[in-house]
Amino acid sequence: MKAWEGFYKNIIRSELVKNGDRILLAVSGGADSMSMLHMFWRLSKKIKIDIAVLNLNHGLRKESSREAKQVLNFCKKLAITCMLGRLLVKEYSKAAKISIETAARELRYAALEDAATKHKFNKIATAHNANDNAETVLMWLLRGSGNFSGIPQTRKISKKIEIIRPLLSVRRTLIDEYVKKQKLPFSTDKSNFSLEYTRNKIRHTVVPAVEKINPLALERIFSLSRIQEREDAYLEAISINFLKKCAKISKNRILLDLPTFLRYNETIRFRILKNLIPDKKYSAVIDLISDKILSKDKSVFKLSSQWSFSVKGNKAVFSKIKK
Amino acid sequence: MKAWEGFYKNIIRSELVKNGDRILLAVSGGADSMSMLHMFWRLSKKIKIDIAVLNLNHGLRKESSREAKQVLNFCKKLAITCMLGRLLVKEYSKAAKISIETAARELRYAALEDAATKHKFNKIATAHNANDNAETVLMWLLRGSGNFSGIPQTRKISKKIEIIRPLLSVRRTLIDEYVKKQKLPFSTDKSNFSLEYTRNKIRHTVVPAVEKINPLALERIFSLSRIQEREDAYLEAISINFLKKCAKISKNRILLDLPTFLRYNETIRFRILKNLIPDKKYSAVIDLISDKILSKDKSVFKLSSQWSFSVKGNKAVFSKIKK
Repeated sequence: MKAWEGFYKNIIRSELVKNGDRILLAVSGGADSMSMLHMFWRLSKKIKIDIAVLNLNHGLRKESSREAKQVLNFCKKLAITCMLGRLLVKEYSKAAKISIETAARELRYAALEDAATKHKFNKIATAHNANDNAETVLMWLLRGSGNFSGIPQTRKISKKIEIIRPLLSVRRTLIDEYVKKQKLPFSTDKSNFSLEYTRNKIRHTVVPAVEKINPLALERIFSLSRIQEREDAYLEAISINFLKKCAKISKNRILLDLPTFLRYNETIRFRILKNLIPDKKYSAVIDLISDKILSKDKSVFKLSSQWSFSVKGNKAVFSKIKK
Repeated sequence: MKAWEGFYKNIIRSELVKNGDRILLAVSGGADSMSMLHMFWRLSKKIKIDIAVLNLNHGLRKESSREAKQVLNFCKKLAITCMLGRLLVKEYSKAAKISIETAARELRYAALEDAATKHKFNKIATAHNANDNAETVLMWLLRGSGNFSGIPQTRKISKKIEIIRPLLSVRRTLIDEYVKKQKLPFSTDKSNFSLEYTRNKIRHTVVPAVEKINPLALERIFSLSRIQEREDAYLEAISINFLKKCAKISKNRILLDLPTFLRYNETIRFRILKNLIPDKKYSAVIDLISDKILSKDKSVFKLSSQWSFSVKGNKAVFSKIKK
C-alpha cells in the first residue's frame, strides 16, 4: 500500500477525520510532516474540513528559522493558514531539570494544545509514522515496562481536543517515495536532538534488521499495536471498575479490602495493584506486594522514601511515611 | 541473576515443581539441556522429586549417536535413568508433506508424551531459554500474528501431564557460563536443522542488536511475555464464555446471533470472531467480517475455498461451500 492509500484508509477506517473537523497540523518541515500536510490538503478537496499549520521552532539548531520559512512558503502555495511559534526548550530543560528531549516534547504538546484551544480546533494531527511506532514498541519491549501498544493512533487531551496520527501505519520508505513523487520541499534534521539514546540505537540497528527479515514488518507491528491498544484499554477499564469496589484512596493512605480483592482473577489483581501502588510501579514490586498479600506477611515493607506497605487483618495498607 | 538462581526462582516462584513430582527431562545434549539436567539433579538433593532423561535421536545428523552416548554417560555419572529414542523425522516429513522442522517438533512432543504416559511422569521439562522466548516474541511481532506471550512457561498437554520450562527466563550467555563453571559435557548442533529461516535470522541479527542496547533485554521480554500470557488467557476465557452465549456451531454451519454479539465490547467481538472464523483467521479478515456485520452488508463473501460468509437478518452465517 502506498503512503496516500495508507493515510486515506486510516482516515476512513479508523474514523480519524469527520466532516466539519477543524484540524491543526503539527508541521516541523521534515519529510513526514510535509507529506501529512500535502495529504490533508488533498483530503480537504474531498471532504469538508478546515486545516491550519503550526510550526514550532525549538531554537536548538541554526537551520530552524530557514526551515520555518520553507513551511510557511509551502503553506502559502497551498493557501493554508500557517502559524509560527517559538519554544524555549533549553531554558525550560535547565529550569525544570529535565532532558532536552523531554522538555521539547512537553513544550511542543502544550503549545499545540494552546493554539488549538485558542483557535477552536477540535483535532491536532501529528506525523508519526510506522517506524516511530515500531521503535516505541521495541523500546518498551527492551525496557520490559508498559505494554506493546506503541504510539496511540488517537488520544483525547481535553474535553474538546483530540490528537490524531493518520500516518502511523505508514512506513518511512513509503513516505520518502511520496515526497519524491509529489516533489515536496522538506528539510532533514541531522541533529537527532529530539531522539533519546535508546530510540536512536533501535532506529539504526534493530529496525533495519527487522525490515530485512520482513519488508512488511512495520505494518505488522502497527496492526498488533492496535489490537494491543484495544485490549489494554478494555482490561484497564474492567480493572478500574473492580478497583473501585475494593479500594479506598485518600491522600496519606490507600486501603485495599482483601476478601473482595482476592475474589478477582490474577490479571485483574495485577492491574489493580499497578493502579494502586503510589510509587515504583515496576512488575517486580507488584509481584512482591502480591506475594505479601497472598502469604499474609505482616511485616512492614518500605516501598519508597515516601510510602510503606503492610497487611493488617483483612486490609492491605499503603501509608505515607511521616517525616 | 545467574543461571541456577534463575532456574531455582522459577521453580519456586512459578511453582513449576512440587514435592513428589515425577519429571521427564528432554535432553538433546546441547548446553541448554545438559545444564537443565544438572540443575534438576541438584534440585533432587533439595526436594523430593523423581527425574529421568529422554534423549531423542532425530536421525538428521551423523553426530547424533555420539551425542546420545554423551548424554547417557553423563546420566550414568549422576545416577539418573536415561532412555533413548529414535525419531523418523525425514520419513514423516515426506509422508505428511510438512517441513523437517515441523515434523521434528511434532514427533518430539509425541515421543515425550508417550514416554511420560508409559512411565507415569506428571511433568515434562524442556530446556527452552530466554533467547528462544525472545526469538518467538520477535518472530510473532514481525508476522503480526498471535500475540506477544512467547513460549508458555507451563502447558498442560493432557489431564495428567504438564510441560514445564524452568530455564525460560534465563538468557543463553548465563547458561554458557554455567556450563563452563560446572564443567559440563555438551555438544553443539551446528546444523540449525531445527531452526526456521525467520528464527535463524532473528537469532543472528535482531537479538544481538537488542542485547547490545540493553544487556537485560531478554529478561525484560520474558517478564512482559508472562504478563501477556496471563492477560491473553483471561481475555480468551471471557471471550469463549461470551461466544457460547451468541454462537451455534455445527459441522457445516456457524450461526452468530447479532443482537447478542453486538452488545459486547469491540475487543471481545474481535476475539469471538477469531474463534468462530473457520478458516483464514487473519486480523484483516476479522476486520472485514466485522465491517460487514456492522454495515449489515448482505452480500455473500467467500472466506476460503471451504467457507462462505453472509449476514442474514439477525444472524451472521458461516456456511460450508457445497462441492
